[in-house]
Amino acid sequence: MSNTNEFATLLNNVRGQKPLVHHITNYVTVNDCANITLAIGASPIMADSIEEAGDIAAMAQALVLNIGTLNERTIPSLLAAGKAANSEGVPVVFDPVGAGASRLRNETTAKILDEVKVAVLRGNISEVRFISGLGAHTKGVDAAESDTADDAGPIARQLAARLGCVVAITGAIDAVSDGSRVVRIHNGHAALGSITGTGCMCSSLVGAYCGASQNTFAAAVAALLSMGIAGEIAFEAAGAKGNGSFHMALLDAISLLTPAILQERARYDETQS
Amino acid sequence: MSNTNEFATLLNNVRGQKPLVHHITNYVTVNDCANITLAIGASPIMADSIEEAGDIAAMAQALVLNIGTLNERTIPSLLAAGKAANSEGVPVVFDPVGAGASRLRNETTAKILDEVKVAVLRGNISEVRFISGLGAHTKGVDAAESDTADDAGPIARQLAARLGCVVAITGAIDAVSDGSRVVRIHNGHAALGSITGTGCMCSSLVGAYCGASQNTFAAAVAALLSMGIAGEIAFEAAGAKGNGSFHMALLDAISLLTPAILQERARYDETQS
Amino acid sequence: MSNTNEFATLLNNVRGQKPLVHHITNYVTVNDCANITLAIGASPIMADSIEEAGDIAAMAQALVLNIGTLNERTIPSLLAAGKAANSEGVPVVFDPVGAGASRLRNETTAKILDEVKVAVLRGNISEVRFISGLGAHTKGVDAAESDTADDAGPIARQLAARLGCVVAITGAIDAVSDGSRVVRIHNGHAALGSITGTGCMCSSLVGAYCGASQNTFAAAVAALLSMGIAGEIAFEAAGAKGNGSFHMALLDAISLLTPAILQERARYDETQS
Repeated sequence: MSNTNEFATLLNNVRGQKPLVHHITNYVTVNDCANITLAIGASPIMADSIEEAGDIAAMAQALVLNIGTLNERTIPSLLAAGKAANSEGVPVVFDPVGAGASRLRNETTAKILDEVKVAVLRGNISEVRFISGLGAHTKGVDAAESDTADDAGPIARQLAARLGCVVAITGAIDAVSDGSRVVRIHNGHAALGSITGTGCMCSSLVGAYCGASQNTFAAAVAALLSMGIAGEIAFEAAGAKGNGSFHMALLDAISLLTPAILQERARYDETQS
Repeated sequence: MSNTNEFATLLNNVRGQKPLVHHITNYVTVNDCANITLAIGASPIMADSIEEAGDIAAMAQALVLNIGTLNERTIPSLLAAGKAANSEGVPVVFDPVGAGASRLRNETTAKILDEVKVAVLRGNISEVRFISGLGAHTKGVDAAESDTADDAGPIARQLAARLGCVVAITGAIDAVSDGSRVVRIHNGHAALGSITGTGCMCSSLVGAYCGASQNTFAAAVAALLSMGIAGEIAFEAAGAKGNGSFHMALLDAISLLTPAILQERARYDETQS
Repeated sequence: MSNTNEFATLLNNVRGQKPLVHHITNYVTVNDCANITLAIGASPIMADSIEEAGDIAAMAQALVLNIGTLNERTIPSLLAAGKAANSEGVPVVFDPVGAGASRLRNETTAKILDEVKVAVLRGNISEVRFISGLGAHTKGVDAAESDTADDAGPIARQLAARLGCVVAITGAIDAVSDGSRVVRIHNGHAALGSITGTGCMCSSLVGAYCGASQNTFAAAVAALLSMGIAGEIAFEAAGAKGNGSFHMALLDAISLLTPAILQERARYDETQS
């Protein structure tokens, strides 16, 4: 990741290959997830019945598992889809929404990490702290302020090493690690926290990039760069107009994102442990 | 409620305290409910599994129960969350979407009112007429035109007295009562009826205000004033552009609402029985 | 359908009668379906519990069955609502989202067509090819490019004749047939494929028009003309701004659609077999 050409190529690949990204996700932000998947150039499908979740996952190029509104019907579907994806070599992105906030979410998170080989875990700092056993102060689905003081880099690296996957933590400064390298992303805007679903949409973008690349580490970085840059562009365009306009402008910015914009605006640093 | 300073203070409290507002709600308007909760300054969480509904409700500052797309899986969750909220002193806002339109909705409404101590009941005139035993002509989830002729004030007051809670009826003129006082709100715009979810969003705002105030009556009034004023501002900004723009402008207006705007634009009268 | 006056009348009827359109639909695009139903002038209700689906369908003026995120709980509801609608003479619009993509969708599609008398089947070319037994290359919920080369007209006519209903295929050129007449619609814009839900929204518009007309063939044509024209207007207004703006402008355009615009902009040809 010595230069930003790689991300430009990854974006071109998404647009050229239009990977099918299967989601089992929550009903709060699902429309935004589908629309951002289309906006980045991929093709979304949402299917959560146990009768088809495995079939759809196996034909997809990536699978996104999101526990935002999980329930007793969809938990078996999450696991079945994850296993089917594993069997077919389809990369699995896991978004542990609200991990730490209830026993159900905690147990389901543990089960997914135990039974499914996850390619990329994407969460906020409270969720990742909880999974890492570091304790978390989350009171819901948003990161707790008291959890955001730490540098996310070492936490991402440690969990990535333990789970043997890429861990991507989004926040004021994002951190992505494969267990040895850590990329910290400085793009983004605080307004992304003022509308619902920007975390879920990030996970969808990770799915889209993973569906068009073997390099899940680079894919996760490209996805978070894309969201961070789009957040900046959206705020410049519409931030002063309010949350509704910013929400719309965010989808605008992803759909108009080009490899050139990605290269020009990317701000990140990389360290190797 | 002798002056509008109280509402300004309530809005400041929401923004300062960021109460967690748990929703068990329908999948039609849930994204708008989450976004308006964020826009007013609170924090939304949606969780409807029976395995976690009680846990989440007990840690929230307010609970919103909305039966817009209820089903056999979520009815026990609505009741469990309501009871858990009651045990912990968390105020419960109940939105009886479509009460009067089917036996399932009627029976579930009766069950919730029987088993859960509701702090604020927020509905349209057809729903509240039905619950009041006055008969209703609703054919769906919108108020029937023939039900809107009456002054909502006495209907709100009578039901509030019977149920021992605050009743908030939204319509051309909103009415809020605690069983003795009646506040009639003259803010609002007919365009609010042209997009889906403005009733549900009102209930989310009531939840947000109740989550930051002990005074559920004032909280309900502040929430309806906020929605009415935002509707006016949104229509001024974007009404002529069509429904999509108005929808976006409504979320803009809530996010940009200030205590000063609330004070300046509030139009209401208060009577005491 | 010798002139466009008929479509103008149909739109006036929707606006004047405000038909109640019951949907059992997916949670991905349901908000857009509700909002477009309101924007065209009808009244949406979404109710998928088996305990009320039949009751609501029977009181509606049209029923839309959409299998976008079907599951074991809602399949019986789809069938029960369809049968209740049939008993009461309420027209049923069927949107076989993703037919061809999984055994569950294929079997459910077959079951609905077997047990429910459908008035209008609205799908993309891959879905309709699959149902027609012509094979399809769909890999998800969007039409496969290799399926779009054919003229949809004969395929629509053949399936319409076999099923004894109206078949409406949306794509670059839409085709609507009642088994003998074929109307091909030239309105529309490729950008409609860049946001999720435009197919589902089309089906909602078909429901709205069918709810205010006995002529299901003309209703389906009017609905597709409305969507095509709104897509053109939305692209002119906001296409260059990106997907979020286009999405909003589409709902704007439907809400501002007038009989005069419909007459002036309609581009279609009609053939008789």
